[in-house]
Amino acid sequence: MIIVMKFNASEAEVAAVIAYIRSAGLTEHVSRGAELVIIGAIGDEDALNPARFEMLPGVDRVSRVTKQYRIVARDTHPAGSVVKIRGIPLGGQQIQVFAGSSSIENAAQMAALAQGIVDLGCPFLWGDIAQTLDGPYQLQGNEHDNLSLLQSVASQFKLPFAAELVDLQMLDDLMAHDVDLIQVGAGQMQNRILLKELGRINKPILLRRGHAATLAEWLMAAEYIAAGGNHHIVFCEHGARALGSEGRNVFDVASIAWLKQETHLPVVVDASSAAGKSWLVPSLAQAAVAAGADGIWLDVHPNPNAAWRNADQSLDLCQLTTLLSTLRAMAPALNRTI
Amino acid sequence: MIIVMKFNASEAEVAAVIAYIRSAGLTEHVSRGAELVIIGAIGDEDALNPARFEMLPGVDRVSRVTKQYRIVARDTHPAGSVVKIRGIPLGGQQIQVFAGSSSIENAAQMAALAQGIVDLGCPFLWGDIAQTLDGPYQLQGNEHDNLSLLQSVASQFKLPFAAELVDLQMLDDLMAHDVDLIQVGAGQMQNRILLKELGRINKPILLRRGHAATLAEWLMAAEYIAAGGNHHIVFCEHGARALGSEGRNVFDVASIAWLKQETHLPVVVDASSAAGKSWLVPSLAQAAVAAGADGIWLDVHPNPNAAWRNADQSLDLCQLTTLLSTLRAMAPALNRTI
Amino acid sequence: MIIVMKFNASEAEVAAVIAYIRSAGLTEHVSRGAELVIIGAIGDEDALNPARFEMLPGVDRVSRVTKQYRIVARDTHPAGSVVKIRGIPLGGQQIQVFAGSSSIENAAQMAALAQGIVDLGCPFLWGDIAQTLDGPYQLQGNEHDNLSLLQSVASQFKLPFAAELVDLQMLDDLMAHDVDLIQVGAGQMQNRILLKELGRINKPILLRRGHAATLAEWLMAAEYIAAGGNHHIVFCEHGARALGSEGRNVFDVASIAWLKQETHLPVVVDASSAAGKSWLVPSLAQAAVAAGADGIWLDVHPNPNAAWRNADQSLDLCQLTTLLSTLRAMAPALNRTI
Amino acid sequence: MIIVMKFNASEAEVAAVIAYIRSAGLTEHVSRGAELVIIGAIGDEDALNPARFEMLPGVDRVSRVTKQYRIVARDTHPAGSVVKIRGIPLGGQQIQVFAGSSSIENAAQMAALAQGIVDLGCPFLWGDIAQTLDGPYQLQGNEHDNLSLLQSVASQFKLPFAAELVDLQMLDDLMAHDVDLIQVGAGQMQNRILLKELGRINKPILLRRGHAATLAEWLMAAEYIAAGGNHHIVFCEHGARALGSEGRNVFDVASIAWLKQETHLPVVVDASSAAGKSWLVPSLAQAAVAAGADGIWLDVHPNPNAAWRNADQSLDLCQLTTLLSTLRAMAPALNRTI
Repeated sequence: MIIVMKFNASEAEVAAVIAYIRSAGLTEHVSRGAELVIIGAIGDEDALNPARFEMLPGVDRVSRVTKQYRIVARDTHPAGSVVKIRGIPLGGQQIQVFAGSSSIENAAQMAALAQGIVDLGCPFLWGDIAQTLDGPYQLQGNEHDNLSLLQSVASQFKLPFAAELVDLQMLDDLMAHDVDLIQVGAGQMQNRILLKELGRINKPILLRRGHAATLAEWLMAAEYIAAGGNHHIVFCEHGARALGSEGRNVFDVASIAWLKQETHLPVVVDASSAAGKSWLVPSLAQAAVAAGADGIWLDVHPNPNAAWRNADQSLDLCQLTTLLSTLRAMAPALNRTI
Repeated sequence: MIIVMKFNASEAEVAAVIAYIRSAGLTEHVSRGAELVIIGAIGDEDALNPARFEMLPGVDRVSRVTKQYRIVARDTHPAGSVVKIRGIPLGGQQIQVFAGSSSIENAAQMAALAQGIVDLGCPFLWGDIAQTLDGPYQLQGNEHDNLSLLQSVASQFKLPFAAELVDLQMLDDLMAHDVDLIQVGAGQMQNRILLKELGRINKPILLRRGHAATLAEWLMAAEYIAAGGNHHIVFCEHGARALGSEGRNVFDVASIAWLKQETHLPVVVDASSAAGKSWLVPSLAQAAVAAGADGIWLDVHPNPNAAWRNADQSLDLCQLTTLLSTLRAMAPALNRTI
Repeated sequence: MIIVMKFNASEAEVAAVIAYIRSAGLTEHVSRGAELVIIGAIGDEDALNPARFEMLPGVDRVSRVTKQYRIVARDTHPAGSVVKIRGIPLGGQQIQVFAGSSSIENAAQMAALAQGIVDLGCPFLWGDIAQTLDGPYQLQGNEHDNLSLLQSVASQFKLPFAAELVDLQMLDDLMAHDVDLIQVGAGQMQNRILLKELGRINKPILLRRGHAATLAEWLMAAEYIAAGGNHHIVFCEHGARALGSEGRNVFDVASIAWLKQETHLPVVVDASSAAGKSWLVPSLAQAAVAAGADGIWLDVHPNPNAAWRNADQSLDLCQLTTLLSTLRAMAPALNRTI
Repeated sequence: MIIVMKFNASEAEVAAVIAYIRSAGLTEHVSRGAELVIIGAIGDEDALNPARFEMLPGVDRVSRVTKQYRIVARDTHPAGSVVKIRGIPLGGQQIQVFAGSSSIENAAQMAALAQGIVDLGCPFLWGDIAQTLDGPYQLQGNEHDNLSLLQSVASQFKLPFAAELVDLQMLDDLMAHDVDLIQVGAGQMQNRILLKELGRINKPILLRRGHAATLAEWLMAAEYIAAGGNHHIVFCEHGARALGSEGRNVFDVASIAWLKQETHLPVVVDASSAAGKSWLVPSLAQAAVAAGADGIWLDVHPNPNAAWRNADQSLDLCQLTTLLSTLRAMAPALNRTI
């Protein structure tokens, strides 16, 4: 830990900082510069509480030097990791496309979707079992029934499938339906109780970024899962909203490269949520692939005009065909396949 | 719903919009301007899906005219509501101070805190039972034990107390400990399953704003609770983080007045979270009161230098005394008491 | 203009809105819905002042239906425009690369840069003549001398060149040096006096987005130039900073597609400013091209380790070679050339 | 400067950092911790270029320890400064109210405004001479005529007055009209040429925060002026817009206290710009005063319903009377007068 003293800090104030460092079992290293004194605390940083240093008189600011995430950090695992989802690799040379729908309506619609996905060579199916609507007065979905329908269609088309853990009480149901990839939504990204439970199971987890989470917080959330023993973690960027924005999302495309520098785990981009409008999806999906994403998550509907939810951000199968064709043409330039 | 057609929309496109309006049982009202055609859909807006209109060719944009929140809306309840927390009114002329600690350590520390709070005339106690720390490798709290300790100290000093529903599975425990005010954190603000459960109980709920939630989404989350029958809801603003900010929070002080314009329910400001640093807390607490807040939430510790958590944002009892004195001096100018 | 009345607006309040509409020479169109009254004002919206409507009792909100930018709008010019910069087309099928340096040091360094650019087939040179440094106590550049050096090197290598209009008083100097493309920085994006002067000249203008400008404000700034008669305008997106962010920029990649939907003019992305770090530049430049940018602006230095400014965001010629090779391999998949 | 090396940095990489430090005439101080090497560079930091350190292999990050602003820093001037504007003190115990109008219409309207201001004991007048409108097709103001009108009314009522330096070419005109306080708008906050010119004159400057400027950048802009010899500088916070926000401003009330911690110069808040709506202005003005502002800037109009510009954010004289009355009742609680 590095403690920068204030411009006019006294010797007594410096001594108090040193005393706290020693009391925690660390060693100090003092640099006296032309204007300021800087103190390094050498030893196990986790034994120190930066907030307490900031309370000491004469202290200007304190910064950690080591990172708090370890298992997920690239430092300790320089090569990229591949996470296998029912045998399908994510994080390697192959970019994976996760097509599915945020509108689970009935068996016929889901089967039409799954058939379209299979025909286009996309290896996964997902469905939004929660069907979160705008308010309590609109028709609400039933998570359990939606999950059963999703599993049944996925099974019929032999597709691995993904579903969201909307609340921890749904976990047993997800396990009972043998879901292949469990999604954690932005709201639950910092629910420590839920993350710990996910650390105890042996299923790949797709962890969405909290709505205003920093990269460090996102990595820490993954570390909570990993610390429990489950290292099958995938990050999913999905666009964020700026404070006060009543309008569209902002997709922080640079976060892909920042994240891949910090972690060895795969990064997926939900281009449909990031775009919010179907006409914008191809542009963002292409940008995500060009910026290094390992997978693209897409909202697809056999007939978006009739979709119950997210009609405006769903691609139809024809638009998906065109997008896949562009992505497949781009991939070799990026030394990837898709 | 108002549908603005594109600059060059054709008559066939206008006809398709009208057909969809009629198919949902509403009536259209067409305005043909110099440059644009605008169509109003008259009737129950909830029967229409704005996203589907946006899919229709020739449509530029669509906007709802009615609000989706009703029970919580000031429109339908012009006077402000008072929420009673074990008999203590929140939302009236009296501004309430919620002092407590994000660091529950032991009975002696909590008793010292409660004694200080009682001496200063603050009528509530809270404690952060989850003790969320920075990462999985640091000492973690035990929610249940912390809750028991909190209840025991509150009971000893005859203070109503508040605790957070960290995850829905903690609800029975909170009810068993007869907590007086249940907090919903930013992460759970859009967990529909949890909100619905809270609609079924008869306890005041303090609903924090989601990290990047709009006011409309925050009001909708309250409506979910209210629709279930529990109208004892308090909003809590606590500062937000701007996208990409690695640094301090931004406290959007204008949100107090915007919120009070939209809803009749009380608004509390967590000045400690909003500030992040104890030296900044008084300035933000004073600003919140001046801007119309009904209550102030404060992190207090008998000895912040030794606090296990949030040492840097906790006031000591002496600083709390000074702040209360300033707030009490300011209140009459604002026609409030404190 | 559409005026939505409040829930409980009286007939007298509706009548006052109608009276104001008629007084401005427009016609009203009143829709009485189940809950609300909505009034359309038909005629020339520019004769109305939306802020005055909002002052009228009983008015909830007001929205314009026509856009205020016309010459730059795609509505009135559906095909994309090509802006020619000393004969080189920008905005057509060919994506252009603008290489240059934010560190103008001496003739040898600039010549080494220009030679590298020519060898790689990049058709433009730019230099940051203002050399804005971090503070008044560091070595400051001389705009005039830097401009002369830039012109001399560009002329030697027969490259069109770009320079920034740091302040309006530099305009004569830029014209005297026969600069081929005039940059307007983020700070001057809303300087109406400067924009009007640029409307009077016959030179291509590269207009950077103001640091917190909305797309509509950016388009309006271009309209100010266009209204004066100069239609040779290029938009340049360069990353933005979120409120309170002390850290890196956020590059809003979706703005490329949103902008191209609204305007027929070309869009360039400054990948170096957007990235801030040289290792991140290729990822963002690739994303920008994949998302539809017409040009990429890059900060390049023959020896970044020794650069006076922006050493950390400058590519060396070897890195530029690799990036160009990737972009050229990607372009056919996007039906572009580069 | 503190250089934190990467986890696996080699001895040769450490040696290269030391060599660069020595080559700039500074001395290194090396701390070898359990996991990382940290190097302090002792001596004049301005001789080092942090960006160059970041280019060196094995370097993880670099941070300055001294601040780059000096004259404006509170470190070197612990007591607050009072800036006198034609003899009226700003920055002391007295909070000053700057009332004026963003709509300069004619002599009668301005005289009615000035009379109202004088009657209420507000000691300044301001007017927006640029009258920036939404677009080029609306009636545009004439800066020179507006300035003359403003001066004439101010003179008639013996009020010091403020006007904006919209572009540097207006400076001579402002000086010729003997303006008492020169405003620098958000857009010009980083125009080094303009800031330097303001350093050469002997007039108080009100420096608005750039739309997305950090506090450090804002302080640096003031340092540019101060370094030229003009230390009469006032900071003006006016709300900021979050990235992508199409809606209202966000007023970062904490910036007042942060700024006052860093600088000894006065801080004013433009509550009208921060609010955007007149009904919200009192709430934000009160919050600003409660948070420690030295002055409040207000947009006032004798008849907002008829205002040419910003009708929706202007207070009328009756609303101003009420607001002043509240602020005056609050001030003693804050040990201020108003």
